[in-house]
Order: sequence, then C-alpha cells, then structure tokens
Amino acid sequence: MTAPPPLAINQATTRPQWSLAQAIDGYARAGIRGIGIWPDKLAECGLAQARRLIASTGLAVTSYCVGEMVVDRAGKLQTAERNRRLIDEASALSADCMVCVMGGLPAGSTSLDDARRRARDTMAELLPHARAAGISLAIEPIHPMRAADVSCINTLAQATDLARELGTGTGVAVDVYHVWWDPYLAAEIARAGSRILSFQLCDWLADTAALANDRGMMGDGVIPLARIYAMVRAAGYAGACEVEIMSERNWWRRAPDEVVSVCIERFRALLAEAEHPARPA
Amino acid sequence: MTAPPPLAINQATTRPQWSLAQAIDGYARAGIRGIGIWPDKLAECGLAQARRLIASTGLAVTSYCVGEMVVDRAGKLQTAERNRRLIDEASALSADCMVCVMGGLPAGSTSLDDARRRARDTMAELLPHARAAGISLAIEPIHPMRAADVSCINTLAQATDLARELGTGTGVAVDVYHVWWDPYLAAEIARAGSRILSFQLCDWLADTAALANDRGMMGDGVIPLARIYAMVRAAGYAGACEVEIMSERNWWRRAPDEVVSVCIERFRALLAEAEHPARPA
Repeated sequence: MTAPPPLAINQATTRPQWSLAQAIDGYARAGIRGIGIWPDKLAECGLAQARRLIASTGLAVTSYCVGEMVVDRAGKLQTAERNRRLIDEASALSADCMVCVMGGLPAGSTSLDDARRRARDTMAELLPHARAAGISLAIEPIHPMRAADVSCINTLAQATDLARELGTGTGVAVDVYHVWWDPYLAAEIARAGSRILSFQLCDWLADTAALANDRGMMGDGVIPLARIYAMVRAAGYAGACEVEIMSERNWWRRAPDEVVSVCIERFRALLAEAEHPARPA
Repeated sequence: MTAPPPLAINQATTRPQWSLAQAIDGYARAGIRGIGIWPDKLAECGLAQARRLIASTGLAVTSYCVGEMVVDRAGKLQTAERNRRLIDEASALSADCMVCVMGGLPAGSTSLDDARRRARDTMAELLPHARAAGISLAIEPIHPMRAADVSCINTLAQATDLARELGTGTGVAVDVYHVWWDPYLAAEIARAGSRILSFQLCDWLADTAALANDRGMMGDGVIPLARIYAMVRAAGYAGACEVEIMSERNWWRRAPDEVVSVCIERFRALLAEAEHPARPA
C-alpha cells in the first residue's frame, strides 16, 4: 500500500476570510501540507514576506494559479511580459507548477477557434522562459460554461493535446469541477498520465444555479470523487490533492478554521472510500 | 442557390406570455412557418384543440420537446408508459420529431456512466413504439453544466453515437446553446449528417450568470451562428431553424409580438451573414 497523498488547500477556498499570511498560518496550524496561491493575494502580501512565511511553516506551494493568460476579463490581450513576471513569481515561491487558465474570447470575437490558436501560440512563446525558470506550466481545462469569459480550453482532451504539442515543461491540471461530466474522462485521465501536474478537489452541487463561485464541499455533491481520485492515481499522479472551493453561498461565509477542518475530514472520507469502494448501487 | 430554410419558433421563447393557443396564433400572424411545442403547454390547451388550431394556421410542428425521458427532476425513474404517451401526442400533432432530453442523475446517484447506460436502454425500449407511430426520436445533447439535473447526454458525439447504435427512427437535435463550445463541433456536425433532425437557435450572452433560462437573442451573444448554420446545412440538414430562447431577464419580460418580430429580423441577419460571410477579424 502506497502512502496517502498530501492534502493541500487552494487559498481560493478561504478567499474572503483570509489574507495569504493568514491562510499560510491557518492551513499550517491545521496540519495541511500544501497551499495553492493566487497572484492578487501574493501581491497584497508581498513576495518576500510570503516566502518567509512559507519557509517558516514548511508548507509546499502546490500551485500558483494564474488566470487570463491570453486575454483579460475585459477581453484585452495580455502582454508576454505580464506572463513572464508571473512565472518569475511562481519560481520565487518554488511552486510545484503554475496552473494556467487561458481566458475566454477577446472583446468583439465570436471565434473560439481563434482563441484556441492564440492560446497555443501564447503558451509556446512563454515556454522557454518557464523552462529556464524551472516552472512547469499546467494547462487547466475549464468547464464549458465558462468558455466565453474564463477559458477557451474546455476539455481535458484539448489540454492534453496542447501539452503534448508544446512538450517538455508543460502538462495539465485536473480539477474535478471542470471535468467530471466528460463522457471520455476515464480514457482522457489515463492518456494524460504523467502530464497531470495538479489535481484539484471540490464537488458539484445538484442544485447549482450560478456559473461562478457556487462550488460544493467534497461529499456534498454528485461528483464520483473516489472514482476520479483512483483514475488520477492509476495514471501515475503522486502529488498533492488540492481542495479548491469557491462558495459564495456557504463556505465563504463560514469561519475559515471550520472550513479547513471540514476539508480535512472530507478528504479522509474520500481516501477511505477510494481504499474500500462501496458496492455500486 | 437553394431556398432559405423555414423559420420556426419554439414556444419556450414566449413561455410566460403566451398559452399554446396564443403562440400558434401569434407565430402564424407574424408569418412564422413552424412551432416547437412542450407537453405541459399542450396539456393546458388540450390535444384536440391544439390540432384544430395548428391545422387552421398551417403551421408545421417542428418539434415536440420532451424532457426527463429517463428520470424526472426529483430523481425518480420514469415509466415506459409515460414516454409512450408522449410519442402518441407527438404523432397526433404530426410533429417532425420528438426532441428527447434524458434527465440527469437519479436521486442519490453519482454515476453519469450508469445514467448514460440507462438512457440507452430507455430509448431502445421505446423505439419500437416510436417507429410504429412514425415519430423520429431526436436525442438532444444538453450543455455539460446541466449534467446533474437535466441530461446525462452532454456532447453531440455522445448523442450521435447513441443514435447510430439505436438505428432507424433516431437522430440528434443540435441546439447551438448546448454545443457551441465544443472543440470538435465542426467534425461532429459533419459526422451527424443526415441524423440531424432538429436545429435550434439562440445565443450565449458573454455575461451569462445563471444555468437556467438566461439565453440570448441571436446576435446578442458570442456564438458564431452563421458558421454553425453553414455547418448544419453542409451536413445535409434542410429542415426548419427553430428559435428557442428562455430568458428570464429579458425576452420573457417583453411583449411577445415584439419578441417574435425580433426573432424574424435576427434570423434574416443570420441568413445574410451566412450568404456573405464577413472577412474574419
């Protein structure tokens, strides 16, 4: 029996409650082993201070989570300089990878095909800098409901194809929220194999009504988490499981220490189920 | 140059404003050539009365739109009897096809795989009755954001595979809202070919925030409508284009005659663009 994977928490899970400094402290106090960090929270804290706090707690930075790689939310194209700076930050944090979300359609465009070509070109242009910095780029497929505004990469198949094309130093991020519905998920996780650089957990609530920030805690929704976890492990992924729950209606309103403790408890239940799957109904 | 396809309107577009009798009258008055009908609206009107009104206006019934084929919204399995009755209604309406939406996960289940197997079995069991009634079953792929609660069939590839497996008397419904994001859309529309039994139009608003009833009018969103229209026509589809816009924030609040007239105007613009595509930006 292999050791269970470390549990990490993406700081988006406690975004409104905790600054980066508070999250580092709070997660570490609860025995969490890794943290996913966002650029706006890092900027608030300052890079030097963040490095000191992370070093003092021994937390791993399991991901540096970057959106709008190609276009920003206003539909304006990004500069290569902006993205190189983010890679430098990921490197300064010794992040396991930079999770890259592409952005949606530029203002005035109705062509996802163009956006997808631009995503490939942007990543290809950036890759030498990432390789030099020793930072792997984890391309994250984002749920098709966010194709217009968050990312033109919407299936694991697309992300894996892109990572294969770009080659060394790239891979994919598998967030169950974005891929759980995919009829080809099992085959695509197996195909992604060693390209899986990040694995993120949450749940899809059966009564989800909003496109943004309406995620559920593991076990409260309909995603077969233990099955997907087993697929990812069977594909060779041995890294952390990073919980990422943006939840306006529930978890963002709770005491953050409570959120963290529920994450731990539910992750244990997930591991137990994966170890001893219940008989299918 | 082939004749332009007839414009139809799905009565969901004027659901809160108009009963079925009012929709038949209102669409016909505006020169619309076909109507998509829903079971609850038919029940309100009565089948005999609906048949009389449709015959008197000369409208085609381009679809009879049936949800929850496998499980209802409460997660309870449907009976075959219920679905056979719906086929009989479609037949009595001389509908071009019955658009079939499967339903999501049964209560307590987290297995889309099981739901998909059940969808296949349910449709296979129903097919002899549909064939005897002369009603084609158009399997509709529904946007992945509704996998939990509306349908376990979420890509055109899945719907086409299912129709191929089931054979004669089955096909697919292509609603741009559900499929526009699909990276394999062009290839999948070509592969669906003569199996395309229904083509539905609306738009995806860039600022979509809700999963339900937040569709846009053609031209107000980011779907490349003229391109998808051209794909569907090139695949051999010569039937009606049926507008289906559920819009709580806008079109459901307007005078229905105005909604219909905007549908006509925007459909003309779409055809003009398809005839003379603008140079890509």
